[in-house]
Amino acid sequence: MAKILWVNPLVTDDSFDIPLKESLEQIKQPGNEVEVVSVKKGPRHVEYRYYEALVLAESLHIIKQAEKDGFDAAVMGCFYDPGLHDAREIVEDMVITAPAETCMHLAATMAHKFSIIVGRNKWIPQMMDNVILNGMERKLASFKSLGLGVLDFHADEQKTMKLIKEKAKEAVVEDGAEALILGCTFQFGFYKEIQDYVKVPVFDAIIAPFKYAEFLVELKNKFGWTYSQIGGYETPPISEIKQWNLEEDFNIKGLWE
Amino acid sequence: MAKILWVNPLVTDDSFDIPLKESLEQIKQPGNEVEVVSVKKGPRHVEYRYYEALVLAESLHIIKQAEKDGFDAAVMGCFYDPGLHDAREIVEDMVITAPAETCMHLAATMAHKFSIIVGRNKWIPQMMDNVILNGMERKLASFKSLGLGVLDFHADEQKTMKLIKEKAKEAVVEDGAEALILGCTFQFGFYKEIQDYVKVPVFDAIIAPFKYAEFLVELKNKFGWTYSQIGGYETPPISEIKQWNLEEDFNIKGLWE
Amino acid sequence: MAKILWVNPLVTDDSFDIPLKESLEQIKQPGNEVEVVSVKKGPRHVEYRYYEALVLAESLHIIKQAEKDGFDAAVMGCFYDPGLHDAREIVEDMVITAPAETCMHLAATMAHKFSIIVGRNKWIPQMMDNVILNGMERKLASFKSLGLGVLDFHADEQKTMKLIKEKAKEAVVEDGAEALILGCTFQFGFYKEIQDYVKVPVFDAIIAPFKYAEFLVELKNKFGWTYSQIGGYETPPISEIKQWNLEEDFNIKGLWE
Amino acid sequence: MAKILWVNPLVTDDSFDIPLKESLEQIKQPGNEVEVVSVKKGPRHVEYRYYEALVLAESLHIIKQAEKDGFDAAVMGCFYDPGLHDAREIVEDMVITAPAETCMHLAATMAHKFSIIVGRNKWIPQMMDNVILNGMERKLASFKSLGLGVLDFHADEQKTMKLIKEKAKEAVVEDGAEALILGCTFQFGFYKEIQDYVKVPVFDAIIAPFKYAEFLVELKNKFGWTYSQIGGYETPPISEIKQWNLEEDFNIKGLWE
Amino acid sequence: MAKILWVNPLVTDDSFDIPLKESLEQIKQPGNEVEVVSVKKGPRHVEYRYYEALVLAESLHIIKQAEKDGFDAAVMGCFYDPGLHDAREIVEDMVITAPAETCMHLAATMAHKFSIIVGRNKWIPQMMDNVILNGMERKLASFKSLGLGVLDFHADEQKTMKLIKEKAKEAVVEDGAEALILGCTFQFGFYKEIQDYVKVPVFDAIIAPFKYAEFLVELKNKFGWTYSQIGGYETPPISEIKQWNLEEDFNIKGLWE
Amino acid sequence: MAKILWVNPLVTDDSFDIPLKESLEQIKQPGNEVEVVSVKKGPRHVEYRYYEALVLAESLHIIKQAEKDGFDAAVMGCFYDPGLHDAREIVEDMVITAPAETCMHLAATMAHKFSIIVGRNKWIPQMMDNVILNGMERKLASFKSLGLGVLDFHADEQKTMKLIKEKAKEAVVEDGAEALILGCTFQFGFYKEIQDYVKVPVFDAIIAPFKYAEFLVELKNKFGWTYSQIGGYETPPISEIKQWNLEEDFNIKGLWE
Repeated sequence: MAKILWVNPLVTDDSFDIPLKESLEQIKQPGNEVEVVSVKKGPRHVEYRYYEALVLAESLHIIKQAEKDGFDAAVMGCFYDPGLHDAREIVEDMVITAPAETCMHLAATMAHKFSIIVGRNKWIPQMMDNVILNGMERKLASFKSLGLGVLDFHADEQKTMKLIKEKAKEAVVEDGAEALILGCTFQFGFYKEIQDYVKVPVFDAIIAPFKYAEFLVELKNKFGWTYSQIGGYETPPISEIKQWNLEEDFNIKGLWE
Repeated sequence: MAKILWVNPLVTDDSFDIPLKESLEQIKQPGNEVEVVSVKKGPRHVEYRYYEALVLAESLHIIKQAEKDGFDAAVMGCFYDPGLHDAREIVEDMVITAPAETCMHLAATMAHKFSIIVGRNKWIPQMMDNVILNGMERKLASFKSLGLGVLDFHADEQKTMKLIKEKAKEAVVEDGAEALILGCTFQFGFYKEIQDYVKVPVFDAIIAPFKYAEFLVELKNKFGWTYSQIGGYETPPISEIKQWNLEEDFNIKGLWE
Repeated sequence: MAKILWVNPLVTDDSFDIPLKESLEQIKQPGNEVEVVSVKKGPRHVEYRYYEALVLAESLHIIKQAEKDGFDAAVMGCFYDPGLHDAREIVEDMVITAPAETCMHLAATMAHKFSIIVGRNKWIPQMMDNVILNGMERKLASFKSLGLGVLDFHADEQKTMKLIKEKAKEAVVEDGAEALILGCTFQFGFYKEIQDYVKVPVFDAIIAPFKYAEFLVELKNKFGWTYSQIGGYETPPISEIKQWNLEEDFNIKGLWE
Repeated sequence: MAKILWVNPLVTDDSFDIPLKESLEQIKQPGNEVEVVSVKKGPRHVEYRYYEALVLAESLHIIKQAEKDGFDAAVMGCFYDPGLHDAREIVEDMVITAPAETCMHLAATMAHKFSIIVGRNKWIPQMMDNVILNGMERKLASFKSLGLGVLDFHADEQKTMKLIKEKAKEAVVEDGAEALILGCTFQFGFYKEIQDYVKVPVFDAIIAPFKYAEFLVELKNKFGWTYSQIGGYETPPISEIKQWNLEEDFNIKGLWE
Repeated sequence: MAKILWVNPLVTDDSFDIPLKESLEQIKQPGNEVEVVSVKKGPRHVEYRYYEALVLAESLHIIKQAEKDGFDAAVMGCFYDPGLHDAREIVEDMVITAPAETCMHLAATMAHKFSIIVGRNKWIPQMMDNVILNGMERKLASFKSLGLGVLDFHADEQKTMKLIKEKAKEAVVEDGAEALILGCTFQFGFYKEIQDYVKVPVFDAIIAPFKYAEFLVELKNKFGWTYSQIGGYETPPISEIKQWNLEEDFNIKGLWE
Repeated sequence: MAKILWVNPLVTDDSFDIPLKESLEQIKQPGNEVEVVSVKKGPRHVEYRYYEALVLAESLHIIKQAEKDGFDAAVMGCFYDPGLHDAREIVEDMVITAPAETCMHLAATMAHKFSIIVGRNKWIPQMMDNVILNGMERKLASFKSLGLGVLDFHADEQKTMKLIKEKAKEAVVEDGAEALILGCTFQFGFYKEIQDYVKVPVFDAIIAPFKYAEFLVELKNKFGWTYSQIGGYETPPISEIKQWNLEEDFNIKGLWE
């Protein structure tokens, strides 16, 4: 049994959180538990690095608190994978997953090349950094941009579906993609119909990292496979955090205990 | 519920198969079923490309038959990942996993760099090809060679354990590895003690691809994510197979029906 | 004087073998001898990894036997270069060449970039692996796909010629190719006319590896340059082959003596 | 004339800030102005990703405010280059530099290979990401780790100097480095003596990005060369920032006006 | 104060040299001095490797003489960067810059990707080598070719401007370039209008390396940062030059003293 | 029948040229003709870029003249491969080869990795550029430096032999080299004994490019495979050469006719 937290590093409301929790409930393994949480203050999407910067600390504190509260895993819910490595650094052995890393590694074990369908060209340079750092340059067939912002995807779902299908087809026929990745958690709800249309796997940015989190919890519990504290994921020393009054200064009293 | 077949692309006997099946039984998800099968004729290890060549066709036929028999997944049980892509080509949507691909992708989502502990230098060039083709060059800290053949690992387990520990330590301390991969399915039984010793995750070449197979079956069944028939995994046309009498010539009557 | 064997890793008949032998006779160095041989059972083309798997062992045994029969070199006659490294592993110092490796290295010493003209998109992922492993990613201008299977090339030669010319022109004008490679041994007979048309060298997948084999035999005989037994091309020990009855099981009595 | 702000993304005191400002005064171009500022709350070093996360937003707000206050450039004062791209996103055309990016590009135009001398192994994975993303993999001779934390460098300066000299020598003699980079702003004060000792350029992580900032201001003012708003550095729309009350929520009233 | 020499590795006349000197005068830092010099014999453009070969030795001798005459820096004035590394080898600590190296490193610190606008396709392979060796493959969005030779750029400036604008627009809109580089010193005079048109920085191949030379002189004088004599820039021993009578044979009496 | 010219881009005397010609006579194919020529003025070795620059133009003129005189091929006799691409640009269809390119491509078709044994560390950066541009980074096991200049190799041949053997052994045993390349034409006379000692192929920098030249002449004559004039090897227009009086200025009257 695993308790898994979905963390939105952006401000959401019930119209997003409730269906998200419901859909995670439906796909989780029996016995597992799901919670959805968002930052309390900040932007309503994180297309910009600045927006990510505003919510980064709070997102990390949510995750650190979740570990104290007995969660086994947290998913950082944005396709930029913001704070993925930071979160792994601060937890002891809680599982942390994120959409881009998970989708790319999954796609790489099911296809020779994949394309990533993004909202706007603005996103591509930062996502390309993730492609490179995950070793996926040769696996990337293309980025396909829809010309839609995060908050536009569900403004007119039929139009969005039509646009994604068009770009998905191009990716498969012209760019040699054998799998597709929907490069934004807000592209939820589309993957199945696209998948039936293009006949290649289409990875959803919510489902994939959530399921991978469940899988990694099982691996951790059964085999002890999780981040070591030796090397890049070494955790900051609590003595420093105490000595510098970071808990007080950042309103996280008792978090690092 | 998933039926998973472990395929040894080499000739084994009960002293290997029975404990292997037992250990898979212990780690599988409840409800799943496990079978272990080996090729009927061929070498007793596959350190050489020639040995792999001898058993390749039979291994693939075992997998194709397993798909007909209702198996959901097959694991190709050798760290060279022999026939991994061939098997994905011939099946319709059965899950196929293999040790190197799985271990490297898992390690890449838990560590900045990993080392692979191999038996002999002979293995490295071929395994390096897999490192490259999986996009893992930058993730590879080092290959560490034990100077032991496949059949030597369990001749003197204490000596082997000591040797692996030594190389594991070097990998972590000198090469910057944050995770280790045991680069041979015959290195079973060692990972846990090594892991406790070096304090970084040590991936076992049997457990990892087996658990990944379970995971991928779940993804396939729930979300339809599996190899497409468009592109590199396009399946050969049955009409050709029939017309050329391949089933008769290769003693696989009825396999392609 | 060198004896060179052309090995078709597929089933052929006289309509292919006789002209092939004749054309090799015409281009060989004076004094050299040529034989053409095909596997006895298997597919009539090897577009699929599965088809390659079926003929791999027999192809290797043909080569091992050829070495015993005094051949100096063997050419593995398929542009996927199937079994190229396996063959080098099992022979003592016989020269082994194959089309993709030879054509790419030749083109790389005559042009800044080259394109490879293939039959179908299906072939590209596997051939791309060869491009990568041969260090040719930066030399590759593009793959150009004709939409023709192996057995279609000579169904309507005029149509095929027209198609190749079209793609060849595109490669040179749009993709910056300074050389072209015909990416299938069954594209024989076309290179000269294409070459006159596009005014860049067009490498034929039969001629190139055959001539390179002649060249390497000369280098081996005069300077001793050939695969070492140290490292990746280490040969399997005959003791194992005998002990495991591989000769009997695979109908190759006396081959490993 | 340019006004340049040095931003410490960490909490400092006068014992650091005053000598830092003095040394920048000494090296600046005549007519230029220098200010040094640090975040108000947070850690006293940023060896950990978590510490960087805590100070990221405040650092960016300092920079945005500086732009409003008429500064021409800001230097993000940590060798991880934290927030470098975020800062470029939020400013209009203010110059932003950072130590790693600057030192590596400078070194690359003066040497075939360089080594980076870091405090602890912990830092290497994150810094390696910067090496990769800046295209410097082939230029990197090695990382050399001193086994010292940020706050240790000046605890015993003679010991530190001795250690750096030792590693510097190794880098030049064994690793082929033709230049060295001191991979932490807190390694100030050492470069000159090391440089005289090893006879290759030794780049200081404070001086280099400060001087590069001066240079880029000149280029911007004279030739208009600065980040475009098209692409990855597109600035977030003020309308969103206002609508979501980000200024109130993050205590930055009036910053985005 | 720095004395900087612009070296044209081609034969020019006053119609080029005088405006060039004037424009450098206008952009130089106050107090610096500028000279422009060209080789005495040779071609009037260096689009071909052969032409570069003809002027290489004389260009290097001009630079060596300039160092004796007290110049602080020399700019090798051709976008192929001919003799850049040779010049650094022969000087003691004089600064040497060149257009491609400078423009690419500058662009890489201001944009995620850049395109290079060249005259003819002929130039691309050689310039691509520079892209690769400078570590800029991932930063290169595209080469855009105008179909104009070096001497055509100013034959009809309006037509050239129109062509560059067209290609510049394509680079930004289709290829994702966030900066542009004019890949020939003879494209002088165009950058500003293009920059206003496409709204991304457009680097001029004359201004950039000249300003970078000024900057590097300042770094050298203040901090001692310049090429070391250890490694690839080791200078040839004067004893050999004397012993072999190279000064007499190449009409450079007294140059190496 | 082919006429092949060996070009020394350095000043030699009979003690080098006569044995060189004799040894080429012994290894050439029957019917072929060999000439050896050196530049008339210049250095006696080309360890420095400057020395190469001095002899580049004359070397190219020797080759252009040789083409007029009916030579079929020229070998540029230095392991830096100086002028290799320049020479291909100026000839019409004469074969041009050079040591590094040939040795690396040959080694890459016979071994998974190779090491290059060089004289001094000074050479490595420039040779590494050739490794990279030839796509051989992954094939390179290591550079091994002897600490000997070009003119030292034959000062004490026993000592040199001992040194090479030592480094060769290290390369094979520690670095995983399966082949070795002697990275200087002046290392002639050593390869055979080293090869017998380390049991891997050892490529000689004189023999390899000479034999490859013979081979390429055969390919050109029989199949028309040689550099195209389209792209990077486009030849400079004679009209320009005439108009600019380059023949007079460079004492090559009538060369370009």
